[in-house]
Amino acid sequence: MLIFTEQELKQYVELNLEAIDIIEDGFTKLANNEVEMPPIMRIDIHDQNGEVDVKTAYIKGKEMFAIKVSSGFFNNHKQGLPSGNGLMMLISTQTGIPHALLLDNGYLTEIRTAAAGAVAAKYLSRENIETVGVIGAGSQARFQVRAIALVRDFKKLIVYARSTDRAEKYAEEMAAELGVDVQVAENAEQVVRCSDLVVTTTPAKEPVIKAEWLHPGIHITAMGSDAEHKQELEDEVLARADKLVCDTKAQCSKLGELHHALESGALTDDSFIIELGQLTSKELDGRDNDEQITVCDLTGTGVQDTAIALFAYTEMVKRNIGLKIGNEMVALKN
Amino acid sequence: MLIFTEQELKQYVELNLEAIDIIEDGFTKLANNEVEMPPIMRIDIHDQNGEVDVKTAYIKGKEMFAIKVSSGFFNNHKQGLPSGNGLMMLISTQTGIPHALLLDNGYLTEIRTAAAGAVAAKYLSRENIETVGVIGAGSQARFQVRAIALVRDFKKLIVYARSTDRAEKYAEEMAAELGVDVQVAENAEQVVRCSDLVVTTTPAKEPVIKAEWLHPGIHITAMGSDAEHKQELEDEVLARADKLVCDTKAQCSKLGELHHALESGALTDDSFIIELGQLTSKELDGRDNDEQITVCDLTGTGVQDTAIALFAYTEMVKRNIGLKIGNEMVALKN
Repeated sequence: MLIFTEQELKQYVELNLEAIDIIEDGFTKLANNEVEMPPIMRIDIHDQNGEVDVKTAYIKGKEMFAIKVSSGFFNNHKQGLPSGNGLMMLISTQTGIPHALLLDNGYLTEIRTAAAGAVAAKYLSRENIETVGVIGAGSQARFQVRAIALVRDFKKLIVYARSTDRAEKYAEEMAAELGVDVQVAENAEQVVRCSDLVVTTTPAKEPVIKAEWLHPGIHITAMGSDAEHKQELEDEVLARADKLVCDTKAQCSKLGELHHALESGALTDDSFIIELGQLTSKELDGRDNDEQITVCDLTGTGVQDTAIALFAYTEMVKRNIGLKIGNEMVALKN
Repeated sequence: MLIFTEQELKQYVELNLEAIDIIEDGFTKLANNEVEMPPIMRIDIHDQNGEVDVKTAYIKGKEMFAIKVSSGFFNNHKQGLPSGNGLMMLISTQTGIPHALLLDNGYLTEIRTAAAGAVAAKYLSRENIETVGVIGAGSQARFQVRAIALVRDFKKLIVYARSTDRAEKYAEEMAAELGVDVQVAENAEQVVRCSDLVVTTTPAKEPVIKAEWLHPGIHITAMGSDAEHKQELEDEVLARADKLVCDTKAQCSKLGELHHALESGALTDDSFIIELGQLTSKELDGRDNDEQITVCDLTGTGVQDTAIALFAYTEMVKRNIGLKIGNEMVALKN
């Protein structure tokens, strides 16, 4: 059993084009039925305002698959702790034996989530964009924009967050990091009206984007909702989209934006909904022209976890990194 | 993060009355709605004849809960490896932070599974029994009988397995270990007809026990089936039981013996079925007299995993055992 710590993983596993390609390939394999992916397991710790998700997927032909445990405990900030946490393990698909443990505290989730955003942007946003908008100013707001910057050139970034302090800190840091002009918006409407590509990264329980703000050519990626009670987009935003894409319909119809649009009747089971893997596999086309409105609903899938865990494993092993724990099977006292 | 190996766990975590009490308490809390337990997550690796289960449960008020990953890869024997494997992790119920990793390779599952068998025997078998019968001669066949020996005095053990060699090896070892007379039976029928308490521990896909072999006063615990395609008892065995008990109805009606009896119509949704926790919580009575036929269907529950993992953790920590891995959160490159 090999164990990698967050520090090690952060040192050698980067959000780069290779990581994006690997996530894209995961979605393609999902579309081609080369992935076994059971529904998410979830356990709620109501008395602590906490939730733990378990995600997994087996990508056929790979030597290992990942099981990821991720937690969100929303009282943690009172103790000065981040709300999110977690780890991944890699298990042999030949023997079932656990092979590696990635104590990433959620870092690899950040990478694979942002990489899915980049894949969505690649297939759905206009080729030439001027302004990227981001709603939320947390960690994913940074990773998503870094990922977009790998697949699209843009000149301006506009950010809105409920906390102006956080938005200003975000603007300052991202301007320095990306070398683009970063503006703090007064509200979400301004972000949507000014941007060619918008990404929402909030834990909102009420929509933060209204349909009346949409304009031709916009693409929106909503990555915040991953639970029944979360919602970032008005139902009508999904209904207005010329192309509506989900990471998986099964998850989004339970946990994503799609869930609310189906529930309200803004969309129905007959509505035409694309899965991201249908774009990456070239089964269907992404954006057809510069006027379309496109929306992508991301809930986060086990196939991304297995893909990023395998990517990280390769990066670590080729550098001979990792603590080895001897845990050979001990003969049972039979 | 504390890490315990199989070797360490085997040294200090025993199948004893305390372990049985702890599992019994888990079932009681389940019956009293003090446990949050989502359905099992399962991933099949068909091309390798493998399956991986994830089980979990939060016992209210406990500082940690377990997530258990267990695998069965049924081609492993070709490489001289055991089919079963797995590990447990303990996660803080206060913060969601992973706190300990129990690299037990399935050992704790053996303990908690056998402990549930002892709980069933305690409430359902006659007080005074002469002969215990066991079908199967693997590792659980040993653990189940060890567990029964902690709650019932018996003088004889009779074993049947498809492989006579394995049955003979089993008989020799268990006679030495328990100091009782152990006989190898010619068939399953002989086991059932001669025993007051029978435990089935096989991965059978066809029933190994027929209803016509039942006799007044017998108790049967079937612990082998934990998947749709597995079955150890004829449907009629369940229908004939005066008291039919499941570890949980929800699981047994999908994965256990109950599943087949419901499917065939031998039982219906209206049939009176008891959950083990209803006995341990004293909500309902177990065996009422020496003539009743009782059956217990065990599929293995997440609450047992959390209970045994917490027990093991306590045993290890009080001895200062465990490898500590520093994995403090590293500030994100925000």
